Amino acid sequence: MRPRLALVPGEPAGVGPELCIRAMHQLDPMDAEIVVFGDRDTLARAAHAVGLPVAFAAAYEPHAPPGTIPLIEIPNAAVAAFGSPDPANAPAVIAALERAAAACIARQFDGLVTGPVHKASINEGGIAYSGTTGLLARQAGCEVVMMLANDIVRVALATTHLPLREVADAITPAGLERTLRILDAALRGEFGIAAPVVAVLGLNPHAGEAGHLGREEIEVIEPVLERLRGEGMVLHGPLPADTAFLPAKLEGFDAVLAMYHDQGLPVLKYSGFERAVNLTLGLPYPRVAVDHGTALDLAGKGTADPSSLMAAIATCTRLSRPRALARLQAGQA
Amino acid sequence: MRPRLALVPGEPAGVGPELCIRAMHQLDPMDAEIVVFGDRDTLARAAHAVGLPVAFAAAYEPHAPPGTIPLIEIPNAAVAAFGSPDPANAPAVIAALERAAAACIARQFDGLVTGPVHKASINEGGIAYSGTTGLLARQAGCEVVMMLANDIVRVALATTHLPLREVADAITPAGLERTLRILDAALRGEFGIAAPVVAVLGLNPHAGEAGHLGREEIEVIEPVLERLRGEGMVLHGPLPADTAFLPAKLEGFDAVLAMYHDQGLPVLKYSGFERAVNLTLGLPYPRVAVDHGTALDLAGKGTADPSSLMAAIATCTRLSRPRALARLQAGQA
Repeated sequence: MRPRLALVPGEPAGVGPELCIRAMHQLDPMDAEIVVFGDRDTLARAAHAVGLPVAFAAAYEPHAPPGTIPLIEIPNAAVAAFGSPDPANAPAVIAALERAAAACIARQFDGLVTGPVHKASINEGGIAYSGTTGLLARQAGCEVVMMLANDIVRVALATTHLPLREVADAITPAGLERTLRILDAALRGEFGIAAPVVAVLGLNPHAGEAGHLGREEIEVIEPVLERLRGEGMVLHGPLPADTAFLPAKLEGFDAVLAMYHDQGLPVLKYSGFERAVNLTLGLPYPRVAVDHGTALDLAGKGTADPSSLMAAIATCTRLSRPRALARLQAGQA
Repeated sequence: MRPRLALVPGEPAGVGPELCIRAMHQLDPMDAEIVVFGDRDTLARAAHAVGLPVAFAAAYEPHAPPGTIPLIEIPNAAVAAFGSPDPANAPAVIAALERAAAACIARQFDGLVTGPVHKASINEGGIAYSGTTGLLARQAGCEVVMMLANDIVRVALATTHLPLREVADAITPAGLERTLRILDAALRGEFGIAAPVVAVLGLNPHAGEAGHLGREEIEVIEPVLERLRGEGMVLHGPLPADTAFLPAKLEGFDAVLAMYHDQGLPVLKYSGFERAVNLTLGLPYPRVAVDHGTALDLAGKGTADPSSLMAAIATCTRLSRPRALARLQAGQA
């Protein structure tokens, strides 16, 4: 069965629209039914920039010719100039995300794929925005976990975009437990792993070296792991971050939980940036985003690499199958 | 010309002695004159454990048969039992390091290679010890920088073994400037790079994102970089840590300066742990150590992998050539 995915290009002045055009041409329509939430004119000009034909349809149509984009229109206020984000378009960018997410919550769609958003332009447009992950979490009313993944490793983060000096105090027993529950549930549910193995990194170098280099492992992390192991979770750690990513060790882990951004992401990006995707765990639907920014310097040139968006769509397609099946079984198709 | 290297096996109960035996058999004696500073009985039993013949000589002898170890004896107090460090041997372990280092300072040797030391056992032996790097720095009376390197990347650390919550305050303008001066001088001198390019990471995620995720980049790091650029150093950054290690970017850097341990070392170990070595920059002589511990569980079994020690000897041989040349030219040979 084919999942229905909502695809949101993101910032109109960035590479998102042209990556969507490339992806819609390259995808096998047998894999997923994809509907784009965005601005028609922007997509048409992105198609021109990459030199590909484009046509639009009001809804998904299985026998439409290649390059036909099923489009739910969210019109921009201003014509997008590639490379120069216009804050006047901030409401449309956010509306596209919110409408696509609402359609996922309403089970009209099984999963959400998003392109890159330009944070500063949204805020200049008068909308308080610190990231799509937070926006979707508030809309759905739930706690979420950010995970970055490629074909080598899945890295979930206990904290995300915090100044380094705030990280240690942000690692709390309650927060860590919640993060591990969300991660474990997602690995079992969306990823279909019957008995997931999670490597939990320490906060300090050498995972604190038995308390000599910090006591958070002993006082915060280990008690949480011990409690959750008692419920049946398979949790290694707290492990020293520098050796936890050795290739031979990674083979034994379904995911690595890093305590903070720069502890977990350098290996992920080193080992396969082009194929990396950004997942939001804990939402009522799978959400997968590209793992790159708006690349304003490339926008409109037609040369941007769609690998991450293709990987995001492929990942979301796979993770959305259980919801698609449930939708079909519920006769909502 | 062949550099003269002092080789110290480290903890007698660990894998250091047997790695030294393997290395002395595998090395090409045309590359370097190596003299071991250690305990004869421990080395003899390590040779037995790995099944290799061994003989000892009082000094380096160019035509000695393979397996002959030039040895400066530093006798242990107790017979070493592989796998069980004996604090009674702590004074001999430290004496071997200090005597070998003193011989390097006195220009009798051109460089120092060290095996793994067991920190807890040294401290239990009544000697305050937090690492060989610090010991050598105090002995030589200088500031040093720790660098880890393999054939993919060289990572220097602005801070090393600190609890994470102390890292932000430990990054000071004076300390960062000193670290960069030592790093730049070592790259120019020992490494022979005429115009070294150094990537300096930010402290915070996304290198602070223009101050939104921390202000240390703006207030501490950037002013230091600007000042040193004015002296001709080529310094990129402060760069976001997650993307600075992308393979295409690494090709343009002679070294990466990470602000702390777990920001810099995961990629280094992921990308080539077996061949990784630990260098101390800033000493009056090159010092290269293995990038692994005593591996007590493997000691005496004869199966430990000598790759890191072989890489350490090869690296130290290369870095010691300028000093060897100066020694020969001074007629001290």
